[in-house]
Amino acid sequence: MSVAETSDGGQDLAAAVLCIGRQAKAAAALLGRATPEQKNLALRRAAGAVRQRQAEILAANALDMTAARAGRLGNAMLDRLLLDAKRIEAIAKGLEEVAALPDPVGRTLAEWRRPNGLSIARVAVPLGVIAIIYESRPNVTADAGGLCLKAGNAAILRGGSESWHSSRAIHACLVDGLKAAALPATAIQLLPTRDRAAVGLLLGLNDYVDIVVPRGGRSLIERVQRESRIPVLAHLDGNCHVYVHAAADLAMAQAVTLNAKLRRTGVCGAAETLLVDRACAGTHLPALVQALLTAGCEVRGDPPTQAIDARVKPASPADWDTEFLDAVIAVKVVDGLDDAIGHIGRHGSHHTDAIVTDDTAAAEHFLATVDSAVVLHNASTQYADGAEFGMGAEIGIATGRLHARGPVGAEQLTSYKYVVRGNGQCRP
Amino acid sequence: MSVAETSDGGQDLAAAVLCIGRQAKAAAALLGRATPEQKNLALRRAAGAVRQRQAEILAANALDMTAARAGRLGNAMLDRLLLDAKRIEAIAKGLEEVAALPDPVGRTLAEWRRPNGLSIARVAVPLGVIAIIYESRPNVTADAGGLCLKAGNAAILRGGSESWHSSRAIHACLVDGLKAAALPATAIQLLPTRDRAAVGLLLGLNDYVDIVVPRGGRSLIERVQRESRIPVLAHLDGNCHVYVHAAADLAMAQAVTLNAKLRRTGVCGAAETLLVDRACAGTHLPALVQALLTAGCEVRGDPPTQAIDARVKPASPADWDTEFLDAVIAVKVVDGLDDAIGHIGRHGSHHTDAIVTDDTAAAEHFLATVDSAVVLHNASTQYADGAEFGMGAEIGIATGRLHARGPVGAEQLTSYKYVVRGNGQCRP
Repeated sequence: MSVAETSDGGQDLAAAVLCIGRQAKAAAALLGRATPEQKNLALRRAAGAVRQRQAEILAANALDMTAARAGRLGNAMLDRLLLDAKRIEAIAKGLEEVAALPDPVGRTLAEWRRPNGLSIARVAVPLGVIAIIYESRPNVTADAGGLCLKAGNAAILRGGSESWHSSRAIHACLVDGLKAAALPATAIQLLPTRDRAAVGLLLGLNDYVDIVVPRGGRSLIERVQRESRIPVLAHLDGNCHVYVHAAADLAMAQAVTLNAKLRRTGVCGAAETLLVDRACAGTHLPALVQALLTAGCEVRGDPPTQAIDARVKPASPADWDTEFLDAVIAVKVVDGLDDAIGHIGRHGSHHTDAIVTDDTAAAEHFLATVDSAVVLHNASTQYADGAEFGMGAEIGIATGRLHARGPVGAEQLTSYKYVVRGNGQCRP
Repeated sequence: MSVAETSDGGQDLAAAVLCIGRQAKAAAALLGRATPEQKNLALRRAAGAVRQRQAEILAANALDMTAARAGRLGNAMLDRLLLDAKRIEAIAKGLEEVAALPDPVGRTLAEWRRPNGLSIARVAVPLGVIAIIYESRPNVTADAGGLCLKAGNAAILRGGSESWHSSRAIHACLVDGLKAAALPATAIQLLPTRDRAAVGLLLGLNDYVDIVVPRGGRSLIERVQRESRIPVLAHLDGNCHVYVHAAADLAMAQAVTLNAKLRRTGVCGAAETLLVDRACAGTHLPALVQALLTAGCEVRGDPPTQAIDARVKPASPADWDTEFLDAVIAVKVVDGLDDAIGHIGRHGSHHTDAIVTDDTAAAEHFLATVDSAVVLHNASTQYADGAEFGMGAEIGIATGRLHARGPVGAEQLTSYKYVVRGNGQCRP
């Protein structure tokens, strides 16, 4: 029974959330000392439980889907929410992949000896208790819980209310795994209520929660940043650019642009603006615009781009700052490398930006100067992804500058401490 | 002329602080591209200016000292505030030492190649704009400004109002250095007002400031954590422990305890509580307590400790949680390693804790289990210091778990980005 079902008011809810915080803190102390084998056993057993309980998970998801359809959720949201046998298998596989990663805890990150004989080592340790607040996709329950566990952190999960039943069913599998590995069931907790007030209470648990990771739309993230006294690892929007430089190979520019924009339009690494250098606009711009239009992408362009095809709509000033997350792209002709870099600096979101060029010097200048978490030369922005980086999985792409920047995987969910070994040294 | 002197109200102050934020952001963009040689020249020229302007700095400090004496500041505070020829030379040397450090920007932190041919590098970049809010010691102006510059960050400094004239005189030397190296004078700005309202305005500059570093007492840090929407790198108190284990060498235990407590009592790495294992209390406790008393340290003990000497005062429950920052120590007998670790977990501040023992297994268990930024075996807690770690200088000891933990030097004042090089890769 959920708190929402039993609660007679705010006081019960506050007590329940506080209890979750305390349990997480206690679990974190135990998890920090868990062996890699124990954590990996829990992850593999959880994967097994996901497969075994497939029918249960599908039934829970059906409840969510029915409610979502009744609530007139859009098709994109419905698709994010939907689970089927293939997606459930992907969830199980994801947990097994996290189990197969090297253990991020206990790594010696640096080690040196001082003239006085002291040996100093910087050693990775868990962050502690991580609260993750996310939206509709139920698989995040497994991804986030699994990554936190791998890095020795206790997790408090707060999924979207649309995915309430699905998340609960998946969470039950994670608890199965924890129990099978003799780890505390409270190592991964799901907030037992859909009450929105619980999020506010969670953000006030600064004595128990070490870090909050909001994963979702801008309004969620801004609310968390505003309300939280706990440090926030934010994942903001990706207003990503592809810049086709004067020395770009046209075929490559076309392939990279189409992939960056259209492979999946709903991911944060999808390109939203195409910048084409005036020096190659004569040859490249028409081909790029035609390719985008042919592929079914709406093009909103500056005047030179509008001149290419009647289907090109005029770009409004707001378009340069918009994360469309749809088959829409803004296109602009720029006056060389520095103009492109300037545009990205003014309008980008410091997430992911790419240059296409055969000129290595221009590429290196772009890579060094554009201030984004991920900068690419001759590759699609859609590679901004923890799995594609070889990190196994990710909680998201961090756009802040403190702690982790870019894809956040298990390694990024650790802190460190200094271990100093001496033979009686006293400071002069 | 300062804003406080010209201002006719809050609006002018708000406009002035906003302008400082904008200037810092613009300077940060230039600093991020400055060469190591340029930054080091600025640091060395600033050191030269400090030496050359010694008389000016001393005259400014005399103004601060007069006001402080009139304001009846305590002797410890007066000593922190005082500058003399030796301290001014130390400030100049500190800047030269920072210049001599390896450049932390542009380091390749990790590099790998993916099966699809993409090369991925994690490269250190500046954090951006750093606001540092500190208390009385005027040398922090040079230390903090210099470290920020070394790491390519723009700095906004807010010193204690007691050190107003001294900080302005030292700041002028930093500006001399910046100008000599053709770097923007706005790369290191000092808030031009003693008005306390300016701190609140600074904490609201979330569009311009990337990180706030409060350095001072608990009330300052808590205010910053409460008010700031900018991420905070906090330096909280150091309630540090020395645990004398059953297998400790008595002479080493004595030397380490005296050094940890008394070398300097006002630093955050000073020990505040001594834990002695019951198994060696018969031999070690009397010797340790007598040594502390003889050295002029007040001892507040549990009943077994009180039984040693009539001068031992009874420890109150609050003493286990207190950072005395004075020649006072709390002493307690514990029942073995786990009891000691438990006490440190409940009462410590996750700053710095040491074990003295000849038993390597016990030491390793302590080092692995105690959850503090710095853990030491057979060495004094007073080694918790950036210079002693070989980091050249430090802004302080971070006690949070995000980003840097422990001593914060130039390297810790960087973020990173991912640089991805391809040959046309598109994501399947």
